[in-house]
Amino acid sequence: MTFDTSIRFCNSCGASIEIAIPDGDTRERHVCNNCGRIQYQNPKIVTGCVPLWQDRILLCRRAIEPRLGLWTVPAGFMENNETLAEGAMRETLEEACAPVSDIRLFGVYSLPRISQVYVMFLGNLLRENGFAVGAETLEVRLFREDEIPWDEMAFRVVETTLKRYLGEREHGGFSIALTDLH
Amino acid sequence: MTFDTSIRFCNSCGASIEIAIPDGDTRERHVCNNCGRIQYQNPKIVTGCVPLWQDRILLCRRAIEPRLGLWTVPAGFMENNETLAEGAMRETLEEACAPVSDIRLFGVYSLPRISQVYVMFLGNLLRENGFAVGAETLEVRLFREDEIPWDEMAFRVVETTLKRYLGEREHGGFSIALTDLH
Repeated sequence: MTFDTSIRFCNSCGASIEIAIPDGDTRERHVCNNCGRIQYQNPKIVTGCVPLWQDRILLCRRAIEPRLGLWTVPAGFMENNETLAEGAMRETLEEACAPVSDIRLFGVYSLPRISQVYVMFLGNLLRENGFAVGAETLEVRLFREDEIPWDEMAFRVVETTLKRYLGEREHGGFSIALTDLH
Repeated sequence: MTFDTSIRFCNSCGASIEIAIPDGDTRERHVCNNCGRIQYQNPKIVTGCVPLWQDRILLCRRAIEPRLGLWTVPAGFMENNETLAEGAMRETLEEACAPVSDIRLFGVYSLPRISQVYVMFLGNLLRENGFAVGAETLEVRLFREDEIPWDEMAFRVVETTLKRYLGEREHGGFSIALTDLH
């Protein structure tokens, strides 16, 4: 179970909190003994994009932990006040300096063990060389299918996304899939 | 902008926080002056289900604010360590005492103004009378299309979901749609 034991104080009044099941609830929460505030912990959304140029896919080699040095697609935590597509485009700009067009939903993934939901898009690069290394990236390049470094993938959700994309591309037409990664 | 001004203390060390843009970041965050912890605020996921029985749809009349007394489908905040489908089935059990089978993804909605993402499923009731009033519900019943109380809908995302469902049902076959509700 994900239960954040680093939460020890109320972020509203500063008093110490206890772990308790509030009235009318069924789960343990971080509850303030003083003001009653509950600090709910909920899954976070990671939104990302598979940037495409003709038959090639843009991948980024991570410059930060976790998985430093391994390959991924641009993705990151969705921010307040943006849409899923805006978040995916923002991450693609930040990590690969790559504006994309025609962004479309491709996959929704539940990762219950780490309490994350990934929402993955496909997008088209504007130009063949329309990308560069971003702040959290060591290297960015376009890969043909037979060049993809499967042994150096940073995350299983990325590998799952790329394999389904390549499989569906072979048969023409793309579906939107919901996948649970336990 | 959604910025939670009720966050005034570090939930890890109890010191007062300041609103600042951390090094390497581009957005204001709640940063602890003492231990450096950042309390990130991110969009929350609401997961729900449209429970179906033949040509009828199950709706719940809300017993709680917001929108007390208005009609909705079972939906609520996704919890840590569950999948999207598990969350939707849990909410359907809690709010309508209704187990559902054959749950399938139907709609993903960004609501950037309130920093929420809705993930809506279709599901089949197990029996025609396989539901009852849950703790947060005043009334639960099955509606034929011409009986749906459109003027008493609790949320625009529910109205959008039901209208697309009914439209697609008329033409046979259902798609998964991504929708931005600004």
